[in-house]
Amino acid sequence: MEGEPTLRLRIFDLNCWAIRYLSKRRQERVRLIGDTLRREDFDLVLLQEVWSEQDYSDLKVKLAGCYPFSHYFRSGVIGSGLCIFSRFPILDTLLYQYSLNGYPYMLQHGDWFCGKSVGVSMGVRAPLLSLSLQLHAEYCREKDAYLPHRLVQAWELAQFIRHTSKAADVVLLGGDLNMHPEDVGIRLLCGWTGLRDAFAEAMHFEGCKNGCTLVPDNCFTDSSELLPFPLGIRIDYILYKAISSFTVKCEELKTTMGPAPGMDIPFSDHEAVMATLHIQRQGQPVGATSGTADLVLADVVTEARTEVGVGLRAAQRQRYSSGRMAVLALLLLLLQAAAALGTLAGLGTEQPFPKLSFCLLAFLALGVLVLATGLHVFHTMEVKMLHGTEDQMRMALRALQEHP
Amino acid sequence: MEGEPTLRLRIFDLNCWAIRYLSKRRQERVRLIGDTLRREDFDLVLLQEVWSEQDYSDLKVKLAGCYPFSHYFRSGVIGSGLCIFSRFPILDTLLYQYSLNGYPYMLQHGDWFCGKSVGVSMGVRAPLLSLSLQLHAEYCREKDAYLPHRLVQAWELAQFIRHTSKAADVVLLGGDLNMHPEDVGIRLLCGWTGLRDAFAEAMHFEGCKNGCTLVPDNCFTDSSELLPFPLGIRIDYILYKAISSFTVKCEELKTTMGPAPGMDIPFSDHEAVMATLHIQRQGQPVGATSGTADLVLADVVTEARTEVGVGLRAAQRQRYSSGRMAVLALLLLLLQAAAALGTLAGLGTEQPFPKLSFCLLAFLALGVLVLATGLHVFHTMEVKMLHGTEDQMRMALRALQEHP
Repeated sequence: MEGEPTLRLRIFDLNCWAIRYLSKRRQERVRLIGDTLRREDFDLVLLQEVWSEQDYSDLKVKLAGCYPFSHYFRSGVIGSGLCIFSRFPILDTLLYQYSLNGYPYMLQHGDWFCGKSVGVSMGVRAPLLSLSLQLHAEYCREKDAYLPHRLVQAWELAQFIRHTSKAADVVLLGGDLNMHPEDVGIRLLCGWTGLRDAFAEAMHFEGCKNGCTLVPDNCFTDSSELLPFPLGIRIDYILYKAISSFTVKCEELKTTMGPAPGMDIPFSDHEAVMATLHIQRQGQPVGATSGTADLVLADVVTEARTEVGVGLRAAQRQRYSSGRMAVLALLLLLLQAAAALGTLAGLGTEQPFPKLSFCLLAFLALGVLVLATGLHVFHTMEVKMLHGTEDQMRMALRALQEHP
Repeated sequence: MEGEPTLRLRIFDLNCWAIRYLSKRRQERVRLIGDTLRREDFDLVLLQEVWSEQDYSDLKVKLAGCYPFSHYFRSGVIGSGLCIFSRFPILDTLLYQYSLNGYPYMLQHGDWFCGKSVGVSMGVRAPLLSLSLQLHAEYCREKDAYLPHRLVQAWELAQFIRHTSKAADVVLLGGDLNMHPEDVGIRLLCGWTGLRDAFAEAMHFEGCKNGCTLVPDNCFTDSSELLPFPLGIRIDYILYKAISSFTVKCEELKTTMGPAPGMDIPFSDHEAVMATLHIQRQGQPVGATSGTADLVLADVVTEARTEVGVGLRAAQRQRYSSGRMAVLALLLLLLQAAAALGTLAGLGTEQPFPKLSFCLLAFLALGVLVLATGLHVFHTMEVKMLHGTEDQMRMALRALQEHP
């Protein structure tokens, strides 16, 4: 960016909701997204939930002229769904998978299978680190069983950004964070990394009220989900941060408002977020945060740590009960084996059970043993990761309190 | 490090082989390691295979005086086994888990359960990034089924170091890489990151011949493993790199030679590696690599990509055969269900099978279905990750060839 006084960067972010066989009018919408992107000529496009590689390839072919550089991030069983299109060269990419991402047995909540991750691309026009990502979905706000997992993801994301961002002049993050602006995860992410919310900082805003990205006006949105929030909710964000001696200003932020411009259907069940940023080189490096900010941050980290602790205790309980179940199933199997051996050795004159029930019971016990062992292994990993995150947060708190 | 012309840093690295119930004379050896560390007064201690948190806690208590700062990295089912002790404050830690790490069904090769990862700690005496890690073990050199996984790990590690190291002045890596010095993974890691091998750079060396760390003189080493290498092999490394305007020189490198100094047993089945580094601030930043180095690097990346491609095709075959097995089991189950329904509806006059065999067959089919589906899901993830790594390597090659 040397020698250029100001760089104007236009960014497009959208959760595309492009699930094969499940998302309504998927192909039509992907076509529509491609057409719009080609017409509008953004600098950087961050897309999520592009689950089908075919859709990505179609977009790539269509956008080859105006966005010659792109990357699709592969992970998990289904994929990460993340991709990036760019007008400027992508020099390097990296995929960071969160250590916790829901439960494999919650098939109806497919998060585990998606391998939720953050895709990082470096070097879109000189040192610019851009991230496209999606965090674990919130299925029930009142009783949010996935809150600890989402907090672990937010923490890992924040740590990842802290550690990787030094190589860049500007960090740009776009994605579906599945958190409301006032949620502890968002405060943790922004507080711990210094990322700023384009909606809050924008000099000019145009779009849905309060910047909402899941709105009742969108015909694909499940209206029952939005009952407690009649105006909609804001869960898709563009966040940014200037490193070293740069400043970034958000000149304009826009969201789509239901139907795509000039069309009868929306791009997706989420609204697209579009930002225009001004990046400028400054003389002196940006100063450190103030003591008051550190105190607020310490409160946020404490709050997040408490929630992770709640999740840790729940995971410990599940680990214990699955372990107990596995031991019981094993005992039953051993008992049956002893009985069978006894009969074979001619100790008992008669077999106590009919053969069929005996076999059925053995298979049932075996099934329970396998399942419970699998669960035990899984929850052990969950406990380790939650524990590790709690440790890291404690270390961060200590550092905040010692060097206020 | 400002204001100090030279920093002398003494590092200790050891794969401790401290597996509860399995490793011979574990407690005695952990005590011995603790005593030696307390006496020798290193600056930084990087340990691997400390699988028991109790052992870590014992070491922590014992070393609190001379190494007041430490961290244990939790991951996987059993743990990562990684920990760091330091004379200087640890400001921040981060755990990066490799996306591939063996197969959960290879119980005898426990790698999957360990959650192999790299533990990163920042700020041991000003900006110093230190990493403790272990890569996937090699169980058979001739027919090394885990080579693609180890290469993916080496690549991810290299990418991770490239992206995180900008925040540091010096990067230090110690660990059991499970690769010989001439292996493609080591060449990839060093070539792609610029890390240098302390053994190759040391001005003074003292220890086992060729710097070997698995030697026949060690009474805990499995001698059959070392039959093709009568002198031993070198798989534990200390690597380093200076960022920005620093230089690092390795003054001295030592390894233990079987029994610990003045004792009758070794610390572990691996030899410890000890390095003395000199870190100095220089006037001008270190220059970029030359064109020739880039050409060599391109060859290494191509070689690694070929191996990853071989792994990819093997994973695709396994995904296909497990998927086919699952479909066959499902068909058998459906057939049985149809037969059972037919019998219930009175279509057939007699049941074609005895009840017991019928039930046994159904349970067998169900078991195969569950197992094969699990395998299919696992190998699908493996394919995605290998494919993603191949993509990244292709992008790296393009960058190397375009900007030689």
